[in-house]
Amino acid sequence: MVQLEINQLKKLLTDIFLSLGVNSEEASIVVGSILEAEISGVESHGLLRIKPYVKRIENKLMNTQPNIQIVNDKDSIIIVDGDNGLGQVVAHKTLKICFERLATRNVILASVRNSNHFGMSGYFSRKAAEKGYIAIVASNASPTMAPWGGIDPLLGTNPVAMSFPVTRYDNFTLDMATSATARGRIRTFERRGEEMPVGLAIDKYGKDTTDPQAALDGGTVLPLGQHKGYGLSMFLDVLSAGLSSASLSYETESMFQANRVSNIGHFFLLIKLDGLIDSDQFKERMEEWFHILKDSEARPGFEEIMIPGEIEQRKLNQNYSTISINKKTHDEIMKLRERLL
Amino acid sequence: MVQLEINQLKKLLTDIFLSLGVNSEEASIVVGSILEAEISGVESHGLLRIKPYVKRIENKLMNTQPNIQIVNDKDSIIIVDGDNGLGQVVAHKTLKICFERLATRNVILASVRNSNHFGMSGYFSRKAAEKGYIAIVASNASPTMAPWGGIDPLLGTNPVAMSFPVTRYDNFTLDMATSATARGRIRTFERRGEEMPVGLAIDKYGKDTTDPQAALDGGTVLPLGQHKGYGLSMFLDVLSAGLSSASLSYETESMFQANRVSNIGHFFLLIKLDGLIDSDQFKERMEEWFHILKDSEARPGFEEIMIPGEIEQRKLNQNYSTISINKKTHDEIMKLRERLL
Repeated sequence: MVQLEINQLKKLLTDIFLSLGVNSEEASIVVGSILEAEISGVESHGLLRIKPYVKRIENKLMNTQPNIQIVNDKDSIIIVDGDNGLGQVVAHKTLKICFERLATRNVILASVRNSNHFGMSGYFSRKAAEKGYIAIVASNASPTMAPWGGIDPLLGTNPVAMSFPVTRYDNFTLDMATSATARGRIRTFERRGEEMPVGLAIDKYGKDTTDPQAALDGGTVLPLGQHKGYGLSMFLDVLSAGLSSASLSYETESMFQANRVSNIGHFFLLIKLDGLIDSDQFKERMEEWFHILKDSEARPGFEEIMIPGEIEQRKLNQNYSTISINKKTHDEIMKLRERLL
Repeated sequence: MVQLEINQLKKLLTDIFLSLGVNSEEASIVVGSILEAEISGVESHGLLRIKPYVKRIENKLMNTQPNIQIVNDKDSIIIVDGDNGLGQVVAHKTLKICFERLATRNVILASVRNSNHFGMSGYFSRKAAEKGYIAIVASNASPTMAPWGGIDPLLGTNPVAMSFPVTRYDNFTLDMATSATARGRIRTFERRGEEMPVGLAIDKYGKDTTDPQAALDGGTVLPLGQHKGYGLSMFLDVLSAGLSSASLSYETESMFQANRVSNIGHFFLLIKLDGLIDSDQFKERMEEWFHILKDSEARPGFEEIMIPGEIEQRKLNQNYSTISINKKTHDEIMKLRERLL
């Protein structure tokens, strides 16, 4: 692990994106999302994404000057075309449009096409909750998961985040993949030389395996809760890509490859409380509920009952000035600095 | 098991509800939902619910003449008060209102209060998909699940169903609880004298258990995918009860008890494709996708890759004239016949 000043790291990452032709507002959006993921402990959407993002921009597979626009607009639902911009930039712009729409209405849905990997879904749903909205934010993703009962990776581990506001707690944010585990967690078992529990992954023959190497070597991660995660992944694919005419997960390529445009899809649903119900009363009621849950008895082995999002939010609230990052990730970024700046 | 003529059973059940003061249209809605659950293999929402429904009506805890109305109406979102009607009746009426709204718009959300157990969520989302809509239908439920890391049953195994239409396939319907398993499945392990896999339930001390008796004796079912099902259950509670001011799951009592009014909440989200995108093209694309999934390689031990909802739909499509039902459930219904008709 390498210890770095967060402010210096932020400047360095911003400079890297600026050097590639991303404008300063958009660079700050992408870097903000990546750093928030890293700081809140969601490394899989953090700094390890810098290198593949840079590669995709250099291979002209992502557009640094996207013309993001609404292509269909019906009462409370819009279809947005991201013009192949960086996922975070497209999502940020879509969220901004949603916020504008909520000035005069209580519900807005957006389905987005021609986008790219947008990082941590919870980053966007949390922003909506900070504004007082209930939010669902989802995306499809490159295919790494087989349908339940199958072997071939035809589905994404399509993530979805859900947030709502409360009075004093920061908010509620559930941010989850529709797979039983992240591929990154399998790599951790492998590095430690440990066996995995059954139910996380299958080997290339479709057999349950506890050997992380067998899972990584042509195997696939299993869906969350068997057929449930399979169905959830499909349904999120429909909301993100079916509605917007983006590529379905099976039609996209991994973002770690860089051969063709992604055409990833996203989905947003925001609900404004004001004008519909008493939002202060709602938030107070949620707060009371959190206390009932947190004050209930913990199981042996658990110190405390956590509200979804609380662990990540606590880390963010620490406001540390430094961060320790993985050595390999650090070296990747330093190489980029050398080459680009 | 006892074999019964479905038509005769339908008439018998309808007569039972009529004898309790439910009008014929509403009796047919409730019986339709219960029979569809039983026939499609979802016994937990089928005939075993008749006895507790009757008891709740007799104890004046459900209203057989409800005045279901919209109490708040904002562009694409409505709050509905079910006036303590039978859950299926309230849900059916809400769905009808949603269909009417979709004549002139593309999105409608409904959050419902003062309702009761509405049976199988997929029954309603499937009806929406048959009309060509994408649908999410959810409900909260009485508290039987602990928060992740906890022991006390403060959450419902809150179900959610998601459907969308396709061209020739009947549709896609994912109908799932947010728990790792149904309590009914634990009872099945118990009756067979089998051990359960780890991860389904905990005993009353909060310890993982493979002994179904220990799980049933003061233990609780675990959430789907640990913290994920916990967060999902909470978020569905918010959409169903937080928005509508129904009781949150922890504030309700089990429907198998009959001491006080439930005030269960539901949530509906429907999206109309026509006017937004080309619905025929959408449905064709979904159909193609289903074939790619179904034609992919199956794992050892799996005969076929199923589309979510396909197993249930196949059973419904058989159009059997008879059904075999559990002896205990049969005896319960016969006792009701004797007493009420």
